[in-house]
Amino acid sequence: MSGSSIGHRLVLTSFGESHGKCVGGVLDGCPAGLELEEKDIQKMLDYRRPGQSLVSTQRKELDKVEIISGVFRGYTTGAPITMIIWNKDHDSRVYKNFTTKMRPGHSDYPALVKYKKFNDYRGGGRFSGRLTATHVLGGAIARKLLKVTLGIDTNAYTYQIGKIKMKNQFIPKMIKSIYSNEVRCPEEKSARLMKKAILDARKKGDSLGGIIESITTNLPVGLGDPIFSSLESDLAKALYSIPAVKGVEFGSGFAGSESVGSKNNDLYTIKKGKIITKTNNAGGILGGLSNGMPIVLRVAFKPASSISKTQSTVDIKTNKLTTLKIEGRHDPCVVPRAPPVVDAFVSLTLADHALIGGFIKPVL
Amino acid sequence: MSGSSIGHRLVLTSFGESHGKCVGGVLDGCPAGLELEEKDIQKMLDYRRPGQSLVSTQRKELDKVEIISGVFRGYTTGAPITMIIWNKDHDSRVYKNFTTKMRPGHSDYPALVKYKKFNDYRGGGRFSGRLTATHVLGGAIARKLLKVTLGIDTNAYTYQIGKIKMKNQFIPKMIKSIYSNEVRCPEEKSARLMKKAILDARKKGDSLGGIIESITTNLPVGLGDPIFSSLESDLAKALYSIPAVKGVEFGSGFAGSESVGSKNNDLYTIKKGKIITKTNNAGGILGGLSNGMPIVLRVAFKPASSISKTQSTVDIKTNKLTTLKIEGRHDPCVVPRAPPVVDAFVSLTLADHALIGGFIKPVL
Amino acid sequence: MSGSSIGHRLVLTSFGESHGKCVGGVLDGCPAGLELEEKDIQKMLDYRRPGQSLVSTQRKELDKVEIISGVFRGYTTGAPITMIIWNKDHDSRVYKNFTTKMRPGHSDYPALVKYKKFNDYRGGGRFSGRLTATHVLGGAIARKLLKVTLGIDTNAYTYQIGKIKMKNQFIPKMIKSIYSNEVRCPEEKSARLMKKAILDARKKGDSLGGIIESITTNLPVGLGDPIFSSLESDLAKALYSIPAVKGVEFGSGFAGSESVGSKNNDLYTIKKGKIITKTNNAGGILGGLSNGMPIVLRVAFKPASSISKTQSTVDIKTNKLTTLKIEGRHDPCVVPRAPPVVDAFVSLTLADHALIGGFIKPVL
Amino acid sequence: MSGSSIGHRLVLTSFGESHGKCVGGVLDGCPAGLELEEKDIQKMLDYRRPGQSLVSTQRKELDKVEIISGVFRGYTTGAPITMIIWNKDHDSRVYKNFTTKMRPGHSDYPALVKYKKFNDYRGGGRFSGRLTATHVLGGAIARKLLKVTLGIDTNAYTYQIGKIKMKNQFIPKMIKSIYSNEVRCPEEKSARLMKKAILDARKKGDSLGGIIESITTNLPVGLGDPIFSSLESDLAKALYSIPAVKGVEFGSGFAGSESVGSKNNDLYTIKKGKIITKTNNAGGILGGLSNGMPIVLRVAFKPASSISKTQSTVDIKTNKLTTLKIEGRHDPCVVPRAPPVVDAFVSLTLADHALIGGFIKPVL
Repeated sequence: MSGSSIGHRLVLTSFGESHGKCVGGVLDGCPAGLELEEKDIQKMLDYRRPGQSLVSTQRKELDKVEIISGVFRGYTTGAPITMIIWNKDHDSRVYKNFTTKMRPGHSDYPALVKYKKFNDYRGGGRFSGRLTATHVLGGAIARKLLKVTLGIDTNAYTYQIGKIKMKNQFIPKMIKSIYSNEVRCPEEKSARLMKKAILDARKKGDSLGGIIESITTNLPVGLGDPIFSSLESDLAKALYSIPAVKGVEFGSGFAGSESVGSKNNDLYTIKKGKIITKTNNAGGILGGLSNGMPIVLRVAFKPASSISKTQSTVDIKTNKLTTLKIEGRHDPCVVPRAPPVVDAFVSLTLADHALIGGFIKPVL
Repeated sequence: MSGSSIGHRLVLTSFGESHGKCVGGVLDGCPAGLELEEKDIQKMLDYRRPGQSLVSTQRKELDKVEIISGVFRGYTTGAPITMIIWNKDHDSRVYKNFTTKMRPGHSDYPALVKYKKFNDYRGGGRFSGRLTATHVLGGAIARKLLKVTLGIDTNAYTYQIGKIKMKNQFIPKMIKSIYSNEVRCPEEKSARLMKKAILDARKKGDSLGGIIESITTNLPVGLGDPIFSSLESDLAKALYSIPAVKGVEFGSGFAGSESVGSKNNDLYTIKKGKIITKTNNAGGILGGLSNGMPIVLRVAFKPASSISKTQSTVDIKTNKLTTLKIEGRHDPCVVPRAPPVVDAFVSLTLADHALIGGFIKPVL
Repeated sequence: MSGSSIGHRLVLTSFGESHGKCVGGVLDGCPAGLELEEKDIQKMLDYRRPGQSLVSTQRKELDKVEIISGVFRGYTTGAPITMIIWNKDHDSRVYKNFTTKMRPGHSDYPALVKYKKFNDYRGGGRFSGRLTATHVLGGAIARKLLKVTLGIDTNAYTYQIGKIKMKNQFIPKMIKSIYSNEVRCPEEKSARLMKKAILDARKKGDSLGGIIESITTNLPVGLGDPIFSSLESDLAKALYSIPAVKGVEFGSGFAGSESVGSKNNDLYTIKKGKIITKTNNAGGILGGLSNGMPIVLRVAFKPASSISKTQSTVDIKTNKLTTLKIEGRHDPCVVPRAPPVVDAFVSLTLADHALIGGFIKPVL
Repeated sequence: MSGSSIGHRLVLTSFGESHGKCVGGVLDGCPAGLELEEKDIQKMLDYRRPGQSLVSTQRKELDKVEIISGVFRGYTTGAPITMIIWNKDHDSRVYKNFTTKMRPGHSDYPALVKYKKFNDYRGGGRFSGRLTATHVLGGAIARKLLKVTLGIDTNAYTYQIGKIKMKNQFIPKMIKSIYSNEVRCPEEKSARLMKKAILDARKKGDSLGGIIESITTNLPVGLGDPIFSSLESDLAKALYSIPAVKGVEFGSGFAGSESVGSKNNDLYTIKKGKIITKTNNAGGILGGLSNGMPIVLRVAFKPASSISKTQSTVDIKTNKLTTLKIEGRHDPCVVPRAPPVVDAFVSLTLADHALIGGFIKPVL
C-alpha cells in the first residue's frame, strides 16, 4: 500500500526530496543477467536534466546517477538495484516565503493540511517534479530490458505546446529527430513555433502546458491482465504520478467518443502472414490486453504552476488574502522535459506485464 | 498482483463471467458497523441494469444482488462482504460463430492468443461489460460509507453522446434529474437529442460513444498519497478497468493544456472562513491530494464495438479474411448505463483513501 | 493489505462465516488450462469434514463444494475460480451465552474489543476453524497444479497427539496409510494410541493438541525469493493462519538449535548424477530457497480451546467473574482434521512461488 | 510481490549486498511528526555490530547509519525514510574458492542454480546475515514509534545457546541486564556458561545455535486482522526472513501441544479493573489478535553454517566430490547478535498493525 512504490512484479520505490540530500530509486524484480552500467541510465536522465536551455528551468543539476546495489561484474544479479542522485544546486532560501503563502496550482495547501508543520516544503519537497528523475532511473532499466529481450521500442515526444500541435502523424523515422531540438518535437518547424511560444510565455511571466504522445512498437500480443490490471489501468496509474498531468488517453481517446462504431472499430486483416488491424483507434489495447499493434497514448500537462506574475492567494498564518510572486528558477513549460519521464513509466509498466505474463524470464 | 482485485485497504475482488453461473464481488476492508442491506446495493444496480429501454441492450437480467457474507443483524462486521448475482438470461448460442471470427473492437483476438482454447469466449466472458455489475456491488457500499461517515456525495452523469454535449455546467440541483431519463443526462433537452442520436445509430446498425462526467463534493482536504497513490493515479486506474474507456481527465484536463498558467491556476480565497479556490481547473486535486474543492473528472467511452453492420475480419481457424455480422442483443451505446459504474469506482477509490488517511475509522 | 487474501501471484481470498450462509474462496492467478472438476476438490475437502468419527466434532456438514466461476468446458480459463460451500448444520442457539461470557482460549474477548457489538460471534464467526474449509478449496487446486505440472507431491499427517509421537521417520510408502485411520497417522499402532488418548480426553471433558508433519518431494531447486519472500517466511505466514497453530519449524527446527554446525550442516554429495545432501536438517530450504531436497516442516497445534469442563471467566456485561461450560459439538482434538489444511497451505505457497519463479507458465 | 519489501502499511524495502558498496533500507509509511535522528537508530545498530567480542565475527564494521531522506528539521515528514550504511571492511578475496565449492548450510547451491553466474556470491551477497542490519534500520524507527505513541516496550534476549538455557522466566527488571554481557542473556550466570560454550565451539572449529525469546508489553487489545494477517502470521513471516532461523513459536508453542485444554487455556480474571488472563500460554495472541497480555515468542537459530572444520562437498565445476575449509571471519554463533534483529521485526510488524488498526495516526 506504499505510495512510494509502483509495480506488481517489477517494483520501483522512489525516495528523496527536491531540496534534501538526494533523490533515488530502488528497482526490485529486475531479472538477473541484464548487462547494465550507469551510462545506460545516464543517457535518459540527461534528456530530462534541467538547465539545458531557456525553455526550461535554470536550476543547474548534473543529475549524475550512481548505482549502489544490484549490479555485479556488469550484470544485474536479481537483487534490488539502488540508484542515487545527490542533489547539488538547490537554493531553499527562496522558498521561505511560501511556508505561509499558498502557491496556486501547487500542492502547498493540501500538503500543509495533511502533514501539518512536518511537511518538507522546500522546493516542493516530495511533490516536486524533481522526483521524476527517480522514475527515469527505474524506467531506463525497464526500457533496456524490453529492448534487449523482446525488441520493444518506446518513444515519447512533444506533440503539442499550448495551442501548437504537430502537423503530421508520427512515423518511426522521426525517432531520431525527437532530441534534435530543445522542445523534443520531431517536427522541426513545429518545434520552432513551440519554442517561440514558450519563450513568449516566459517573457510575460506566464507558463504553458502541452501534450506528450508515446508510441511503443513490437509488442507481443497478450500483455495485461483483466480486469484491474488492464494495460490501460496500469499505464494510466503510472502516468498520473507525474506532476502536472491532468489527462491520459489511448488511441482515438476523447475524439473517438464522437465517432461511430463502424468507423472506430479497427478491422482485422493479414499482412505478411501476421494478423493486424487496418487502423489503430484502439491504440494497441483491446480488453486491456496488447493486441500487437503499436501502443499509442497521449498525456496532457497543465501549464506550469510557478509563474512570475503576481497572483492573489491566502496567507495560512494570518488566514487573510495576500499576493505572491514566485521568483525562483522554474520551467515556463515542463513538457519539453517530460518525454523521458513518459518513456520511463511506459517502460516500467510494460516490463512489469512482460514479466507477469512470462514473456520475460526471471533470469535471462 | 491479482488482476481481479483493486484497492489498497478497501479491496474489491471481482469474479464471474458474462455467461457463467454468476457474477459477484468480495469487498474486504469495509469497517464494521455500517448499516447495510441488499436494497442499499440494489438501487445502484438497477441504474445499470440492461433491458430498460431501447437505448440499451435488450438482454433481460433482473440483476438481483444477494449478500452471502459479512453482514450480521443488519450491520457490516468487518469481515469480507460477498455479493452475488446469478445470471439468468444469457443465450450463448449466438457466440459460437465468434470463436473463430475475431470481432473488431473486442478482446477476442488478444484473449485467444493469450489464453488459447481455454478462454471463455461466451458473451465476452471475463471481458464483458457485464462484469461492471460486480464493481457496482462494491461501489454501492463504498458510496454509502462515504456518505454516512463524511457526508461525501458523488454523482456521475452523461455529459456527451456522440457529438451532443450538455449545454451548461453541472450544478448540484441537477442531481435529481440524472435518472429522470434513459440516457442519464440531467439536461432534459440534451437528453432528448442524445436519445434520438442513439436510436438513429441503432437503426443504421451502428453505435455511439460518449463522455461521463463525475462530481464529488464535501471531500476533506488531504486524501491521497504521493507519489504513486495520488488520487488521480488511483482514480484513473479504477476507471480504466471499465470496458470501452479510452480517456480520463481531471478538471480542465486536455483543454487545460492549451491554456496558460495565469489562467489555469486556481487562486485561493476565503469564503465563510474556509479556504477555497475561485476556479476549479485542478478538478479538486493538487499534488495528488484532495484540496477540498469538488473532484471533477471526465471519462471517454468509445462507440460500442458490437454493431450489426457487416464488418471484415479474419477467421483464426482458416487464417483468411472473412466478414461477420454481430446479431445478439447489444447496447448501441454503453454510456447511459455507465454512470453508476463510474460512481462505483470513484466511491471505491475515495473510500479506500479515506480509510488509509484515517478519515474513516476501522470500526464505526 | 487485505487480511482475507493470501499469496503474491496465486491469490486466495477467503469469505464466509461459521454460522452464516456459506463459506467460500476465490482463487485468482491459477493458470489457464488446468483440467478441473469439483471432485478434484471434494476429495481433499472430505478429509477435513467434521462428523466422521468420535475423535472430531459431531457437527454434520456435507461440505459439498460448488465451483461457480473460472472453469469452462472442464478446464480453468485463467479467470478467478470461485468455490462455495453452503452451510447446513449450524445451531447458533448454543452460542447465545457466549456473547457476554468470554470463552478462554478463543478469540471472543479480543474480537469483541476490536469489532464491538458488530462482531459475528456465532460459532466463532470469522475466527472459526470452519474457515479452514475455504483454504482447502484453494489448496486442492494448487496441489493438483503442482502435481500435474511439476510432479510435486505434498503430504501432511499427524505426527504427534498429546504426548504420543510417531515411532519412525516418515517414508514415502506411508502415504497410502495416512487416511486409513481416523487420526491420520500413517503408523497404525501409534494411530490407535492417539485415538485412545483423544477419546480419554473427550471423556474427561478435556482436549488435546498435537503436531502435524508435512513432507513435499520432487521440488525443483530455486523456489523462493530473498529476503522477505523466503519459502520459510511465506510458508510460516500461511500455516499460522490456521486457528490453534502456535509453532512452526523446518527441518531440524528447535532441536537443531541444540546441535553443532558440523552435525547440523547437510553435506553435499552426488547420487545418480544429481547433487543432493546426505542429511536434510535444513528441511529442503537454504537461504529461503528450495534446494531440491524434500521440504520438511512441523506445525504445533494447541489443545482445542472448547472443553466441556467448567472454566472460570469474566462476564463482559457485568464485568464480573463467572464460570462457563461449553456444550456445543466440538473437536476434542483438531489435529486429525488438520492434514488437508496443512497440505492446502503448503500447496498454495509452493504453487505461488512456482509461478513467480517461472517454473509454471501462466497458460499451460 | 517484491521479495525485498515487507509490511502492509509500514513498508521496509531492503537493499544492498554483503560485499557491495552499501546496505540500506527505505521505510515507507512512517507517520509524519516522529522526532528522529541518526542516533535513535545507531543505538540499536550498535547492538548487532560485528567485531565486538570473541563470541562473534572479527569483521570490523562501524555500521554507521546515515539518514538520506524523509526527515526534516528533526522530524519525520511522512515521506519514505532512506537509511544507508556504507560497507567498509569487506575482504572478498577469501570467497573466490567458494564460487565452485558449495558451502554446506549456506545458500550457495540453490542461489547458483537460481541466478546462475549472475549471483553475487561475495560474502553471501544478498543472503548474508549482514542484511539484517537493514532490518534494524527500519526496526529502530518502528520501535521508537511504538514507544512514543502507545508506550509499547519490546525486548528480545538470548534464551538458549546450544544446550544451555536460562534458569528463570524473564521479568521486566531483567531488561537492563540484556546488553550487560556479550551473549545478550539477562541472567549473568547463564551468560557466562553460554559464552564459554561458544568459545569452546570456536576453538573446535565448530559452531552453535540457540533460541531468542522476545517479550512485548503494553499492547492494546485488537491488533491483527483475521485471517491471513493474524499477528502470528505476520510476525512469523518477518522473523523467518532472518537467516538461520528454523523455528518460531508463540506462548506455550510446541510444548503446549503436549498439554491439555484445561491447563493450556488461559482463564480470564479482573485485575485493577482490567480484564487479564491468569496465565499466558497464548503468548498474548488469540484468534490472531492481541489480547492485551504480553506477546511472547521464541525464535530458533540453527548453528552457524560457516565452520572452520573440513567438510566434504561438491565442486559445481567438475561435478565431483571435494572438501573445503571455511577460513574467513565468521560468527561461531549468530545468536548473540540477533536480539536487535528480532526486536526490529517484532517492532516493524506491530507498528504496521497499529497503523492498520488506527491505533497510531498517519500524522502524529
